[in-house]
Amino acid sequence: MKRRQLIAAGSAAAAVAACARAPQATPATAGTARFRWTMVTSWPADLPGLGTAVARLAGMIGRASAGRLEIDIQAGNALVAPFEVFDAVSRGRAEIGHSAAYYWKSKSPATPYFCSVPFGLNAQEMNGWLYHGGGLELWRELYARFALVPFPCGNTGVQMAGWFNREITSLDDLRGLKMRIPGLGGEVMSRLGVTQVNIPGGEIFSALQQGAIDAAEWVGPYNDLAFGLHRVAKYCYYPGWQEPGPTLECIVNQRAFDALPDDLKAIVEVCCRAINDDMLADYTARNQDALKQLVEVHKVELRRLPDPVLAALREQSRQLLEELAASDAFARRVHDSMHAYRERILAWAAVSEVPYYQARS
Amino acid sequence: MKRRQLIAAGSAAAAVAACARAPQATPATAGTARFRWTMVTSWPADLPGLGTAVARLAGMIGRASAGRLEIDIQAGNALVAPFEVFDAVSRGRAEIGHSAAYYWKSKSPATPYFCSVPFGLNAQEMNGWLYHGGGLELWRELYARFALVPFPCGNTGVQMAGWFNREITSLDDLRGLKMRIPGLGGEVMSRLGVTQVNIPGGEIFSALQQGAIDAAEWVGPYNDLAFGLHRVAKYCYYPGWQEPGPTLECIVNQRAFDALPDDLKAIVEVCCRAINDDMLADYTARNQDALKQLVEVHKVELRRLPDPVLAALREQSRQLLEELAASDAFARRVHDSMHAYRERILAWAAVSEVPYYQARS
Repeated sequence: MKRRQLIAAGSAAAAVAACARAPQATPATAGTARFRWTMVTSWPADLPGLGTAVARLAGMIGRASAGRLEIDIQAGNALVAPFEVFDAVSRGRAEIGHSAAYYWKSKSPATPYFCSVPFGLNAQEMNGWLYHGGGLELWRELYARFALVPFPCGNTGVQMAGWFNREITSLDDLRGLKMRIPGLGGEVMSRLGVTQVNIPGGEIFSALQQGAIDAAEWVGPYNDLAFGLHRVAKYCYYPGWQEPGPTLECIVNQRAFDALPDDLKAIVEVCCRAINDDMLADYTARNQDALKQLVEVHKVELRRLPDPVLAALREQSRQLLEELAASDAFARRVHDSMHAYRERILAWAAVSEVPYYQARS
Repeated sequence: MKRRQLIAAGSAAAAVAACARAPQATPATAGTARFRWTMVTSWPADLPGLGTAVARLAGMIGRASAGRLEIDIQAGNALVAPFEVFDAVSRGRAEIGHSAAYYWKSKSPATPYFCSVPFGLNAQEMNGWLYHGGGLELWRELYARFALVPFPCGNTGVQMAGWFNREITSLDDLRGLKMRIPGLGGEVMSRLGVTQVNIPGGEIFSALQQGAIDAAEWVGPYNDLAFGLHRVAKYCYYPGWQEPGPTLECIVNQRAFDALPDDLKAIVEVCCRAINDDMLADYTARNQDALKQLVEVHKVELRRLPDPVLAALREQSRQLLEELAASDAFARRVHDSMHAYRERILAWAAVSEVPYYQARS
């Protein structure tokens, strides 16, 4: 990936320059200006699914641009801490980042809607809302306040409810648990007596092992197996009510994006779309293999959350989202947009995916 | 979309040429060669979902390539008939096409697997199999025999079972029906006494209106409403057992593809991925709106196929797929690949999407 004419640049402003030769020779191709962007992420570089998708995105942008836009990935803690990605890109310390919008609720109560909310949309439905239901326009409007351009860039599909070191047979079993569960799911849990802990994914294993937490929600079989969570917790619960289809985000510093010629802007956008498609396919294909291994080789106890627990989680989630919408004008707009879409999508799911799953089995 | 330096070309061989100026000035960007491709499709140009996705694909490729690869869309019957797309691109009459692999079963019994088979995979699962389960490699291997490079390029999601002018309360009601239903779904239906009719989508309305057929399967609410099928049939049945997640294809003539520089090859591939993501989002968002309109405004009778009918369809489908696999060595390989994947995906769906839908409702 090294090229002679690269512009090494640590800030968005410095990242923009044209090569010496013939910038006007090919006007329609927007010249031969070259860009090198630094990319920060919230995941370890080699983490299957999330980390590998980031590497694929960088490779894809490099190939499609014939090397005119190169992405230098600084994953995990290499340049900034996982939960500092938003600020780093917003302030131009890096031009591009990969993370999840629900980590930034302190910036705006509306951000979780652009990733996943409890009992919300699954992956397919999220894409429908974002791209053809008004979601992405709202997301762009919000992030413009922070000089960021957001792109949906991956989805894990329905997650699992989490790993527990004791059985959950009733609501009583939740009380007093210390659980790593980020975002709104964690707030819902805390209303049911759980102590919410928010630590980066890479720290979950040792926290469980050392007894600093009793339970943890991460992603699903593919990622959880990679982190070895089955070695430090016995029970794996489903379904992932708290993150039914989380959209990952690619965020680009506004000035860095504006400095690109139109074709490179299109390439960034299209490659994010392609990764949005690819990551879900990756998780879908790999989760099933990992699930089989967890159950058959590692003898993990796979359990469904009891109905009364799910009912309590659903009701607390509904209340929390209503309160969130009432707390902030922008969150109200986003909530209402997604809520109206969700009502209609329930009717569609009832004559499409749901009866198809029934008919097939 | 008109540019001075365009090369007008009707065949793949003629489509390749470099501009006069400075081809070696920017070696890493693969020069400034320009290409104009003719694209044939199996859909009317303005058909929502299918036709509009093709237009989006062409626009996306044009923007990402800064106009170096322009796509001239000749939709529907403009240049070739809908069911001649495969041959037209294979023989170089057009460089690129958009269609559905299950239309080409006469070329190879394996082609339906790359679109949709009865009681097979839904959209999310198809993408997992194609991109990360070995499906696309098999598809490329098969199409190479025909000098074609295939790309997954869209999915409608779960379709509906079809429109009927009489109620289906038992298997007896199927016997003697003349139904437009293509591919393997049609063959399954014919085993239950239905007369299978295969006509392009654009002819369904008049065939139903004139009584040439008694029933028709097309896509789902979004497309069916656009064709006005509710005006010529009373009952709309679900779920779409015959096409649970059909992948649309973009096919490129091998010589035309090979003639592209690497960056344009990457752009074609990435844009197809982006449309693969976008079309499903489009259908997901629009189907629900169209469903509401069909039921509330047009008073369509929405019905679920009775369990005994679904059970018979499932068993006939299983037998048909086994026979198909036994008839052809390549179909056997594809069948076995998808079948093994499908077994594992059923276990994953049972702890992810299925219980999530239950928990949400």
